[in-house]
Amino acid sequence: MERFKGYVLDLDGTIYRGPYLMPGAREVVAELRKRGCKIVFLSNKAIQTRVDYAEKLTRLGIPATPEDVINSSLVTVDYLRREQPDARLYIIGEPPLIKEALNAGLRLARQPEETDIVVVSFDRTFHYGKLRFAYNAIMKGARIIATNADRTCPVEGGEELPDAASIIAALKALTDKEPELILGKPSPRVLEMATSRMGLKPSECLMVGDRLETDIVMGKAAGMKTALVLTGVTRREQLEASDVKPDYVLDSVAELIEGA
Amino acid sequence: MERFKGYVLDLDGTIYRGPYLMPGAREVVAELRKRGCKIVFLSNKAIQTRVDYAEKLTRLGIPATPEDVINSSLVTVDYLRREQPDARLYIIGEPPLIKEALNAGLRLARQPEETDIVVVSFDRTFHYGKLRFAYNAIMKGARIIATNADRTCPVEGGEELPDAASIIAALKALTDKEPELILGKPSPRVLEMATSRMGLKPSECLMVGDRLETDIVMGKAAGMKTALVLTGVTRREQLEASDVKPDYVLDSVAELIEGA
Repeated sequence: MERFKGYVLDLDGTIYRGPYLMPGAREVVAELRKRGCKIVFLSNKAIQTRVDYAEKLTRLGIPATPEDVINSSLVTVDYLRREQPDARLYIIGEPPLIKEALNAGLRLARQPEETDIVVVSFDRTFHYGKLRFAYNAIMKGARIIATNADRTCPVEGGEELPDAASIIAALKALTDKEPELILGKPSPRVLEMATSRMGLKPSECLMVGDRLETDIVMGKAAGMKTALVLTGVTRREQLEASDVKPDYVLDSVAELIEGA
Repeated sequence: MERFKGYVLDLDGTIYRGPYLMPGAREVVAELRKRGCKIVFLSNKAIQTRVDYAEKLTRLGIPATPEDVINSSLVTVDYLRREQPDARLYIIGEPPLIKEALNAGLRLARQPEETDIVVVSFDRTFHYGKLRFAYNAIMKGARIIATNADRTCPVEGGEELPDAASIIAALKALTDKEPELILGKPSPRVLEMATSRMGLKPSECLMVGDRLETDIVMGKAAGMKTALVLTGVTRREQLEASDVKPDYVLDSVAELIEGA
């Protein structure tokens, strides 16, 4: 296995599953850091803050700071801060996303008619009033962007929870409009942010994840080498049936340092 | 204008708009009744009970009992009572629909896994917990039916509120499943129930409404003569552009008795 200067590591299904660390994950991260490699952790979930992720990793024995983590909230807020700093937002999302937006100096709309952008995300606090507000805002000209477009989100205990795709579909049925941008995986913005964080070129980095259609497709599009781990959602049969071919296929993240 | 033994009168946009009676509506109903004609009032909304509609009509000067009114809740509950009496239901809907179901002796599911049918309706009390329950129920095999599939519902004050279509779309995005049955307008069951209420054949009845794609299409499919009124959502230009041709086009419901 080749050595890289930077590693972009997906979290759920790659580094841990729910509360459990994947075998070898701790040792791999420690060894890569010992070698001087840069590491960024990725998540598509917008329902936890980067602080939460850093704390969880640290608790599991992988010391991490919020700066080591990129999630779809951060990519979305970073896009808005740079490209739409004056937009008034209506956020269908959970408190961590709203907090991330406010911390970045972004502004929230108080009325549908003053809304410039409706931001759609995974939201377990979704209710009819939000649908109604967003509908009225979009009919009055607000654009739609989404942090992610996942159908469901796996949570601890094995349940799959309805994710942002169902809210996107509800708004489409109402307004015939779809998000102009989806900022989390597999958007190229995610890996642009990751490589710029590490100060490396894409060709110097390896994207490691468990999902062909997001992690691997995104890594290839960014010009990185890619490694699929079989500890998450992708089975070997699905890999064989797919047109998406990662550069490496690993039984687990532990193999990242074997022979490399 | 021909005389009929029975008249099926759409409510919103035909008899009244919000709190206001259409000009001549009171006199028309009184005159038709004086002539011995049967009358049934129709609504696609499942958020009010037939008692509410009867009270509103009576208050506006058109005496009516709950038996004079057919809405999508009633058609849905009637279908379930006759064809699925033992099914355990999960209802995404407002209290009047749930009450109508319980009054008919139908049973509610307490857990996703025991749910036989998810009933989707207009629901201003919709929230994430309902989406999650319905998603789990459908993934475990529950069927979907809907009281109606309207995109929006006009309410007093002129606002259009998100109706059942957005919830149907959210579930489709999650499960790839659509309602097997939509029981309100333009389902043929609505007019089957109306004619059976009146004890008349469809050919003896006139369907009167303001919507081409629901009221008029449904009336034609049932074998009734149809009259479009221009007091609701349909403009004369839309009528000319449409393939749906009502037998009569009336400026208002008042013309029902002119020369007839």
